[in-house]
Amino acid sequence: MLCRSNDELQLLVNQAKDLCPDGKVADYIPALAEADQAKLSVALFYPDGRLYSAGDTKENFTLQSISKVLALALALIDHGEEHVFQWVGKEPTGDPFNSIAKLETTTSKPLNPMINAGALAVTHMIKGSSVSHRFERLLEFVRCLSSNKDIDYNEEIAKSEYETAHLNRALAFFMKQHGAIDEKIEGLIDLYTKQCAIEMNCMDLARIGCVFAMDGRDPETDEQLVPLDVARICKTFMVTCGMYNASGEFAINVGIPAKSGVSGGIMGAIPKKCGIGICGPSLDERGNSIAGMKLLEMMSKQYSFSMF
Amino acid sequence: MLCRSNDELQLLVNQAKDLCPDGKVADYIPALAEADQAKLSVALFYPDGRLYSAGDTKENFTLQSISKVLALALALIDHGEEHVFQWVGKEPTGDPFNSIAKLETTTSKPLNPMINAGALAVTHMIKGSSVSHRFERLLEFVRCLSSNKDIDYNEEIAKSEYETAHLNRALAFFMKQHGAIDEKIEGLIDLYTKQCAIEMNCMDLARIGCVFAMDGRDPETDEQLVPLDVARICKTFMVTCGMYNASGEFAINVGIPAKSGVSGGIMGAIPKKCGIGICGPSLDERGNSIAGMKLLEMMSKQYSFSMF
Amino acid sequence: MLCRSNDELQLLVNQAKDLCPDGKVADYIPALAEADQAKLSVALFYPDGRLYSAGDTKENFTLQSISKVLALALALIDHGEEHVFQWVGKEPTGDPFNSIAKLETTTSKPLNPMINAGALAVTHMIKGSSVSHRFERLLEFVRCLSSNKDIDYNEEIAKSEYETAHLNRALAFFMKQHGAIDEKIEGLIDLYTKQCAIEMNCMDLARIGCVFAMDGRDPETDEQLVPLDVARICKTFMVTCGMYNASGEFAINVGIPAKSGVSGGIMGAIPKKCGIGICGPSLDERGNSIAGMKLLEMMSKQYSFSMF
Amino acid sequence: MLCRSNDELQLLVNQAKDLCPDGKVADYIPALAEADQAKLSVALFYPDGRLYSAGDTKENFTLQSISKVLALALALIDHGEEHVFQWVGKEPTGDPFNSIAKLETTTSKPLNPMINAGALAVTHMIKGSSVSHRFERLLEFVRCLSSNKDIDYNEEIAKSEYETAHLNRALAFFMKQHGAIDEKIEGLIDLYTKQCAIEMNCMDLARIGCVFAMDGRDPETDEQLVPLDVARICKTFMVTCGMYNASGEFAINVGIPAKSGVSGGIMGAIPKKCGIGICGPSLDERGNSIAGMKLLEMMSKQYSFSMF
Repeated sequence: MLCRSNDELQLLVNQAKDLCPDGKVADYIPALAEADQAKLSVALFYPDGRLYSAGDTKENFTLQSISKVLALALALIDHGEEHVFQWVGKEPTGDPFNSIAKLETTTSKPLNPMINAGALAVTHMIKGSSVSHRFERLLEFVRCLSSNKDIDYNEEIAKSEYETAHLNRALAFFMKQHGAIDEKIEGLIDLYTKQCAIEMNCMDLARIGCVFAMDGRDPETDEQLVPLDVARICKTFMVTCGMYNASGEFAINVGIPAKSGVSGGIMGAIPKKCGIGICGPSLDERGNSIAGMKLLEMMSKQYSFSMF
Repeated sequence: MLCRSNDELQLLVNQAKDLCPDGKVADYIPALAEADQAKLSVALFYPDGRLYSAGDTKENFTLQSISKVLALALALIDHGEEHVFQWVGKEPTGDPFNSIAKLETTTSKPLNPMINAGALAVTHMIKGSSVSHRFERLLEFVRCLSSNKDIDYNEEIAKSEYETAHLNRALAFFMKQHGAIDEKIEGLIDLYTKQCAIEMNCMDLARIGCVFAMDGRDPETDEQLVPLDVARICKTFMVTCGMYNASGEFAINVGIPAKSGVSGGIMGAIPKKCGIGICGPSLDERGNSIAGMKLLEMMSKQYSFSMF
Repeated sequence: MLCRSNDELQLLVNQAKDLCPDGKVADYIPALAEADQAKLSVALFYPDGRLYSAGDTKENFTLQSISKVLALALALIDHGEEHVFQWVGKEPTGDPFNSIAKLETTTSKPLNPMINAGALAVTHMIKGSSVSHRFERLLEFVRCLSSNKDIDYNEEIAKSEYETAHLNRALAFFMKQHGAIDEKIEGLIDLYTKQCAIEMNCMDLARIGCVFAMDGRDPETDEQLVPLDVARICKTFMVTCGMYNASGEFAINVGIPAKSGVSGGIMGAIPKKCGIGICGPSLDERGNSIAGMKLLEMMSKQYSFSMF
Repeated sequence: MLCRSNDELQLLVNQAKDLCPDGKVADYIPALAEADQAKLSVALFYPDGRLYSAGDTKENFTLQSISKVLALALALIDHGEEHVFQWVGKEPTGDPFNSIAKLETTTSKPLNPMINAGALAVTHMIKGSSVSHRFERLLEFVRCLSSNKDIDYNEEIAKSEYETAHLNRALAFFMKQHGAIDEKIEGLIDLYTKQCAIEMNCMDLARIGCVFAMDGRDPETDEQLVPLDVARICKTFMVTCGMYNASGEFAINVGIPAKSGVSGGIMGAIPKKCGIGICGPSLDERGNSIAGMKLLEMMSKQYSFSMF
């Protein structure tokens, strides 16, 4: 039950697109609010190199929260599992992604690396001699995973997010108070907003998903780009807490490791099977691409994606 | 990488048993406190009917929270997915299993069927003309899944839990106030404590796990005992919230659908591969069998269990 | 600036009554929902025995949460300050009166005796050989404070509340789990709902307020009905947490010890000055009599009530 | 029951001082950690100008949270009651003073001006053409209330607090996100930490307390330094939430408007009676001067301070 043609995918895209008008584009930063609500694109990258795609595949989008997975992979490579999980937990949470309440009422460390507080703690751990060096390292890592040397970040969106990232500053200062972060907050926010603004299209994203799906190996060169254990850990977090407050429901309805962002992007990584890249900027009320979620449900049924 | 002999398993059991003294037996009800902290048993049930086991395999134990999965399966069979999830959510939570706070500060319904509040709402939905009829139906369902007509509940433990179930009464009355439960609470608590006190050994439990692993089909007769979708939903919850507050960590370290109980029991259901039954009454601080968790980590490495 | 005539009060009542249509009658139990939204009554009881009143002064109403002050006084008489505050705290809370969340996330004991959890713990402490004996003692205490031997409870309302008191059962079982309550919950709920259903008119209530205002002494006989320290403690709780979530605002706008109930009753006790009894069943969104609150604001300005 | 001599006060100080070794000095900023744990000073300022004092009365201390009352008075003078309470609530809270959780789980505005979040919102409202102008205005206001032109702030302590105020930055950014604060956070933190570092001795503080006690009038010139309503509002907050998490207990045990700071200072303002200034740097576990609290309890009994 593999996909066999772009046309097959296009049929699903056409159906899912009907939902676009029911959601709305992220409006908390001006640059994201300009996205076209009607767009939807998808790509499937198989380990044998076959790539199928449909919809507005040339559209670029920023990674936003999808970058949390890539930063986590790099931090795990930089420091190892034991060190990283001293500072961030492994447990899913029923709270919204930007919640600060749990930091206070439970243990001092963020519950997992997929909520903003945990992601900030992870980005804090990316090694480098300066903020710009650390960002260069992350960007290089992303270019390597996508096998696309042209990938860069969107300056306008990074700047726009930097200027409005008051909640992330609040989270970062809260963790600085508790010792989990010991660098200058403005530098960290600069790095974090650039990380979120890394830009690509759905085919690039599907290829990165495929690397995780193939236990960290490059689907074309077979090179081990990410250690097996790191790839496994990332996929696990994508299942337990990859889709914000809808992670549990998504695990039931679709059943694959996936991570979404408020740009409307979704990266999927089906173990041993394939990578998925999706972008549909119209969001449901929990911040996931409304048409992208529908598309994944349909694909999961048609191609038997569910791991469960 | 399949298990090939009881001796192979016994070697792992011997190693894992070293952890038994580091945990402690559940002491919140007198009947559970009498369990032997040093015991550990395991069984693996393969779809071709092969059964391997090691340790104190003849020891009976009560299901406790493991029964939440079986009650959920029955409620889903009785009412269908749509009805059940009107009353209980699908999202994991970072809160303790017996938390009442989340009921109040989020939406009115319990976050998922694996925490006590959600499990009570599920048990409330089991059909039958009376409390005893509903319990008979559940017991019959369990006997069918385990292919063991002798399975019954432990009266002494059920009685002991009934007498001390004040927190569950609090949760149940809270939900009655909000309309999620509309039966008499004492009857529901009677049913729920009997459900938790259903008793079996690790081989019975491994066989039940195997039914879920095989998408609901009986591994011997190939009969569809549980609808495919119901089996899938149950396995999904076992991954996202099966091991209390350690579910996220367990997904990373072991990576299989599993559900534990405070009796020290753990049921595993590895999709398409096998069912697992474990019992080791010595618990870690989050309420999971301390030696059982170790054993699953070792088995996961040796037999490549992880789905991720 | 003392009140000098019923007519003077009547003028204020006429003005305050205009607000009655803006609120609504408590509807969570059928018996309360039948109250006449348009009613408003007030009485002022001075220590020299003078009594002024206006409005629908013959209307009887049930004490509801006002009874929390009287039960606290009796429990303090029965056990002394030290014992009582082992089981219930002294701190105000920003949470709703029926919250259970705080029990869990802070110390195990209810924050104060004016929220339902704390009030249940207090009623649990009223001495007596049986539930009915304990209620008789409380009723006798209320008759003594009001100098009215005819005061009794409203059976219909008590029964109606008993049947719907699921949230109070939840709170009571939660505290039983944690050892703060060790009697049968149904007996306690019976006692508590009868306590809430004690019935009187605004003149009775003003006289009770006057006893507290006069440091526990009967305004007519000068007998010490309540020990000075007990009266002082009760008045203090009335200031810090007597008006539900509006206590802080009330302290600023009116500035006197007062306790309200969802029947629309309000008892005031202005130290050394006078007692106040009010009833207006139309409630604002925080559960206080909407016209009663307005009336107290106007009286506070006209008669310089504020202690601050 | 007025105080009649310094010697009378000295006897009480000698007794209360015994508790100093049981507490500990605030250690969260280096400059405060150097305070002498054994010190205790007290002053009583009567409206007729009489001043009694005892203990280490020459010791200067910083206002810390006591400054919240003075900033609130100035903001109320600058903007009026209606405007100020659009941005900060009036309700006490059972949470710690530095809690951020309540901001999220209840209404968006801080519960009251005595917790850090609310105090930051208040300081944000102090009028002026620049941060330094705003601070000059506040300092001038304090000099006027204390009738001491030499009062200034402690630069070393202000700097030390500024460098470690990460939690206050977190609170401020959280409120900036929600629109309650729209200035640059570093400027606000600069202003706030200077405000907290305003320095005086117990006699200065007692005089300020006396202004509030006398409804805002200067006890010597009878000039209205603070409008009556502003003085009343400040005293009310001092009763309902002036002593951190111990406010409710303090209201019962002492029963007067008072505000404490982590420097060990306490300002009291007994309506129509007198002002109190205390400093004892050894703190109890809730952040109030351990000997100062004892001293106030003893004074309350001896001089019948309680308003209740």
